[in-house]
Amino acid sequence: MKTYGFILAGGGGTRFWPLSRQDLPKQLLNLTGKDLMVNETIDRLEGNIEKDDIFVVTNISQAELMIQATDGRIRKEHVLAEPAARNTAACIGYAATEILQKYGDGIMCILPSDHYIKDIAVYKRVIADAIRVAEETDALVTIGIQPTYPATGYGYIRYEKEKKADCYYNVRHFVEKPNLRTAKEYLLSGDYLWNSGMFVWKASVIMRCFEELLPDISICLKKIGAAMNTEKEKEVINEIYPVIPKISIDYGIMERAENVLVLEGSFGWSDVGSWDALEALYDKDEHGNITYGEQVHIDTHDCIIYAKNKLVTTIGLDNVIVVETEDAVLVCDKNRAQEVKKVVEALQDCNKRQYL
Amino acid sequence: MKTYGFILAGGGGTRFWPLSRQDLPKQLLNLTGKDLMVNETIDRLEGNIEKDDIFVVTNISQAELMIQATDGRIRKEHVLAEPAARNTAACIGYAATEILQKYGDGIMCILPSDHYIKDIAVYKRVIADAIRVAEETDALVTIGIQPTYPATGYGYIRYEKEKKADCYYNVRHFVEKPNLRTAKEYLLSGDYLWNSGMFVWKASVIMRCFEELLPDISICLKKIGAAMNTEKEKEVINEIYPVIPKISIDYGIMERAENVLVLEGSFGWSDVGSWDALEALYDKDEHGNITYGEQVHIDTHDCIIYAKNKLVTTIGLDNVIVVETEDAVLVCDKNRAQEVKKVVEALQDCNKRQYL
Repeated sequence: MKTYGFILAGGGGTRFWPLSRQDLPKQLLNLTGKDLMVNETIDRLEGNIEKDDIFVVTNISQAELMIQATDGRIRKEHVLAEPAARNTAACIGYAATEILQKYGDGIMCILPSDHYIKDIAVYKRVIADAIRVAEETDALVTIGIQPTYPATGYGYIRYEKEKKADCYYNVRHFVEKPNLRTAKEYLLSGDYLWNSGMFVWKASVIMRCFEELLPDISICLKKIGAAMNTEKEKEVINEIYPVIPKISIDYGIMERAENVLVLEGSFGWSDVGSWDALEALYDKDEHGNITYGEQVHIDTHDCIIYAKNKLVTTIGLDNVIVVETEDAVLVCDKNRAQEVKKVVEALQDCNKRQYL
Repeated sequence: MKTYGFILAGGGGTRFWPLSRQDLPKQLLNLTGKDLMVNETIDRLEGNIEKDDIFVVTNISQAELMIQATDGRIRKEHVLAEPAARNTAACIGYAATEILQKYGDGIMCILPSDHYIKDIAVYKRVIADAIRVAEETDALVTIGIQPTYPATGYGYIRYEKEKKADCYYNVRHFVEKPNLRTAKEYLLSGDYLWNSGMFVWKASVIMRCFEELLPDISICLKKIGAAMNTEKEKEVINEIYPVIPKISIDYGIMERAENVLVLEGSFGWSDVGSWDALEALYDKDEHGNITYGEQVHIDTHDCIIYAKNKLVTTIGLDNVIVVETEDAVLVCDKNRAQEVKKVVEALQDCNKRQYL
């Protein structure tokens, strides 16, 4: 059975402001110093999925930019443009419909476009296993990340660790982002993995899940499917898609489905959710700093300093994030990187839309 | 007797980097948000000295920029260009020679170009008194600032506080910048004023001091004086000036002369020696911040934030200085503003001359 890659790239991205903007979300940033996150995501599928079989699902406002940014990596018609952001269930349902209507059943690898993976070789082996398991079992296969610290920013998957079959485990249940105390318990128990948002399944299998668990969405998808390959395709998508109920695939299907399997991933993973997450991507210098661009430091420790255009200089700083871009500078206590979105909100409130 | 203003504007200025540069020293900055410091210095002489009688002494490399910056305030030929920086004794001796050779004896008001004065009306009264005292007494008159805190960054003047004659006091002696303990003693004793670097005297009087106390410099000045008003003037200045011994007027004359008088100044004064000195110039906002330019703050207190071109945003900062200019950003612990020159040194060391 053929395997297709679906890279979900619809995110807006305010948490890397001022580098990320409304029209330049995180997946289009080069945070590793190597390439744009979406291109790194595409490129590490090499060996598992043909380039011609990779799709990117993005918002219509970003579709043109995505075609440019991916620079010939994927076929233009494989950039699927959502007419409206309707959360991940809609997006994945649309992708499954596209496959079933235009290519026939196949394995779908659904991957976030803006995550970091350290060990590509291990990652590729896990993806290959997941594809095989999805084909052999007709299950919903997901990849859970072996936790390395009591993260409160990730959802968790409770799995039957003791009962390993082949390379996979049964999933007991998905759980929401915990508080610190609960996260510590999860870590200690060894019974939990981080929910990475990577899913592998047959298009036909996930469509049956929509029918059973999200019938309202399923009806919408059927209407869209019926119009596909006709001259009305675009018109129907533009009409139906914006009214598909907004729900995440986790909440709508994963947490409620029966046949969910998980593979362990230990390849060094981060969802790169805020500036302080760069600490997972870069080696620190001898003072504990992570630096990008031209800079001079005096007595500066454990900082993250990103200089895009200008020289950035620091004196006597500890645990501070400094980000400099064409039109804005951010200086932020490293422990408060989560609050960058408050700046974006403040900019909205005071109508400084040119910075959004 | 006629009164002339001499504004000393030869300083290089690294302490306000990245706003100040080799070719844009502090006196050419607008730190108050009102006007360039040198222009504020010129303008507050109004009422005491005619505009046509004001001179600016500056380095030859800054002379053209100074003419532009002062924007018609002073006559072009009144911008005296030192061919080399030889400290304040040379500079003041040159100014006195200019007066005596070209205009005849007169009162010289010698004023730094880059200091801040809060209460202009009080300042004008003190300057008027100083001019009168210099004319009546043939003394070296200086203005001492009533200390408001135990400053370690200023020189002090010990004066005979109990014996006030007219509006002035005898000076006992000048003292160098003290350590904190000594500065506290000075403040407590009430016997000390800050040395403001403002001097008022007759050209003929200071020339006699040069002859007595700095005979080597006096010989140089006489050679320059002899060439003045001849076609050889420029040539002789260019030849002699660069070899005048380097010494400050304080060390060379003020600390050793007999006839030194001081007037008290209580007009709100700062030499604006580093970024943290802006706290004397601006009212703080309700969070203790001093801000200039476009910015957004979240939970930010007691900071100094100067945004020249870009939006500057901060989250969770206390006691930090942030300065943004066309090509550089500085982020500095407020208690370490004195160390900005270390950044400039580091830039020199790593040959980033474009930022100097």
